[in-house]
Amino acid sequence: MNLDPSVPVSLVTGGAGFIGSHVARELLAAGHRVVVLDDLSGGERANVPDAAEFRHGSVCDPEVVDAVFAAHRVDYVFHLAAYAAEGLSHFIKRFNYMNNVVGSVNLINAAVNAGTVKCFVFTSSIAVYGANQLPMSEDLVPAPEDPYGIAKFSVEQELRVTHEMFGLPYIVFRPHNVYGEYQNIGDRYRNVIGIFMNQALRGEAFTVFGDGEQTRAFSYIKDVAPSIARSVEIPEAYNEVFNVGGDHVYSVNRIATAVCDAMGVELRVNHLPERNEVRDAYATHEKARKVLGTGDRHIGLEEGIGRMAAWVKEVGPQEPSVFSGIEVVRNLPPSWRAALEERRAI
Amino acid sequence: MNLDPSVPVSLVTGGAGFIGSHVARELLAAGHRVVVLDDLSGGERANVPDAAEFRHGSVCDPEVVDAVFAAHRVDYVFHLAAYAAEGLSHFIKRFNYMNNVVGSVNLINAAVNAGTVKCFVFTSSIAVYGANQLPMSEDLVPAPEDPYGIAKFSVEQELRVTHEMFGLPYIVFRPHNVYGEYQNIGDRYRNVIGIFMNQALRGEAFTVFGDGEQTRAFSYIKDVAPSIARSVEIPEAYNEVFNVGGDHVYSVNRIATAVCDAMGVELRVNHLPERNEVRDAYATHEKARKVLGTGDRHIGLEEGIGRMAAWVKEVGPQEPSVFSGIEVVRNLPPSWRAALEERRAI
Repeated sequence: MNLDPSVPVSLVTGGAGFIGSHVARELLAAGHRVVVLDDLSGGERANVPDAAEFRHGSVCDPEVVDAVFAAHRVDYVFHLAAYAAEGLSHFIKRFNYMNNVVGSVNLINAAVNAGTVKCFVFTSSIAVYGANQLPMSEDLVPAPEDPYGIAKFSVEQELRVTHEMFGLPYIVFRPHNVYGEYQNIGDRYRNVIGIFMNQALRGEAFTVFGDGEQTRAFSYIKDVAPSIARSVEIPEAYNEVFNVGGDHVYSVNRIATAVCDAMGVELRVNHLPERNEVRDAYATHEKARKVLGTGDRHIGLEEGIGRMAAWVKEVGPQEPSVFSGIEVVRNLPPSWRAALEERRAI
Repeated sequence: MNLDPSVPVSLVTGGAGFIGSHVARELLAAGHRVVVLDDLSGGERANVPDAAEFRHGSVCDPEVVDAVFAAHRVDYVFHLAAYAAEGLSHFIKRFNYMNNVVGSVNLINAAVNAGTVKCFVFTSSIAVYGANQLPMSEDLVPAPEDPYGIAKFSVEQELRVTHEMFGLPYIVFRPHNVYGEYQNIGDRYRNVIGIFMNQALRGEAFTVFGDGEQTRAFSYIKDVAPSIARSVEIPEAYNEVFNVGGDHVYSVNRIATAVCDAMGVELRVNHLPERNEVRDAYATHEKARKVLGTGDRHIGLEEGIGRMAAWVKEVGPQEPSVFSGIEVVRNLPPSWRAALEERRAI
């Protein structure tokens, strides 16, 4: 353990998860000492880089959070712990606000009380924009359309007022539709690319809500994690909000084809009824390009999906999880409802 | 107990509190059957009207909330349970979000699951506006400046998306600086008029943050509670947001003089350092006047304070409470900090 005070100490919550584990790796490569806090609800212990110190626990437990800050002189907080299942959040409102708002606030309190934190980096989401004008840019007024987006937006506001009241600096990122290695492909409620890859491995048809012509700017992880990790070195980034991710827009149908090619399977699609979601979403990254210097590093869809597919084939198929704490069953998409009923019947 | 299905059943959370108990009385007078849910953290059992059914419990406990909906066919929810201590909310962020967001979401879930609720009436606050342009009007973009305002704004957004997703109708009220009979005068963190009256009864100088020239449109309870109670009968009010309260603006110094006159004491003021708060706040009530017909009922400051003072003299002085769950002590106003340290020393 390096206790040299010139070595920055970064706490990465959700560091056993997808984006978090990539950020932890980037920070280690940049010479930080890294402490990972993760409850392993969505992440895997194996995703945590060996050089990081791992603490098993939830940001929702203030005693756990306070213990981490008591044990370490934390310089930077990278708060990536979250259950980012936007479409499911309507049906798990309480869980959503506990996990995303109360968990974040426990960390903010601890950072203020510690008095050592130089920057609190928070991964929000383009879910804060809602059905806004396109491209989504940071100067638009957020109008979230689901509890997940409302929760993320609340934490963004909380960081602003905490900065005003207590002087805690922050940086907010709004990533979108990130995919890549170490992503959980066994979660049936989120991340279409991972779901398709798992279905490919299991010999199942791809499940598509609606006609599949909804579009998103899918973003490869290497176009996201380095920007997040390096941001704390850029003074102009402090107390600012940044979209981060890919510029190119793809339909879900286009993604299905690309995944088939990468996985070497025939395209078979099972169209499910439309669900309540924004039809098109893409964002401008001009601000990130200007302030963070993130230009010209974009990895193309085929290359990104190819890299992820190679990793997925190694990992193998996963049994899709069922979220057991559904609070409202009404209007749950029929496929999710069926999965829940199947489990309850067992 | 009247189980005639033509008699509307209203659940009033916070019905042992100040605004809630007035709303409960208005609803009873209008022929509703009223169920009060209150944890008595700020309210008093004695405030609950005799004709209401009282349930002791917190909206923060989903089992308690679900039990109320299991026992009653709730037609209307009037959600007034909240710890409305705006200035303190910076220092009790976790409590604030648990109490105001998670508690509200428990009720929203239960209302959606019940399927009987015709309208969910929520008392938000002008705290959602922050340091916005004046007068505050409902078409301004909220920019809350403290955790209390952020929490209230989140619940407003939550009601909007719940309406879109599940069809639950709602009405949002943003009252401001309400005072009157049944207000808790023993809470040192909120409601300047009650604090002054208690200080008058205890022979203490009035404590004023800063120079006392900050202004608010203080609102007598009878200009607020009837509008809230009657709103569910007005279809045009559904899925809308309303400012509600007084039109006239008074400085805190002016309030101090009025309270002295009503309480029959000499004016003595103890000026404390300024705290982080919006200097001026007043709102337009054009929309409420137009849709709810709340015009021409405003009760003047002297009359309202006189009525409250008469009640306060009956009730007698209260020992000011100390909030025991302070999460962040840093930057706590010195007077609050002293009270906390005094208590901890005991």
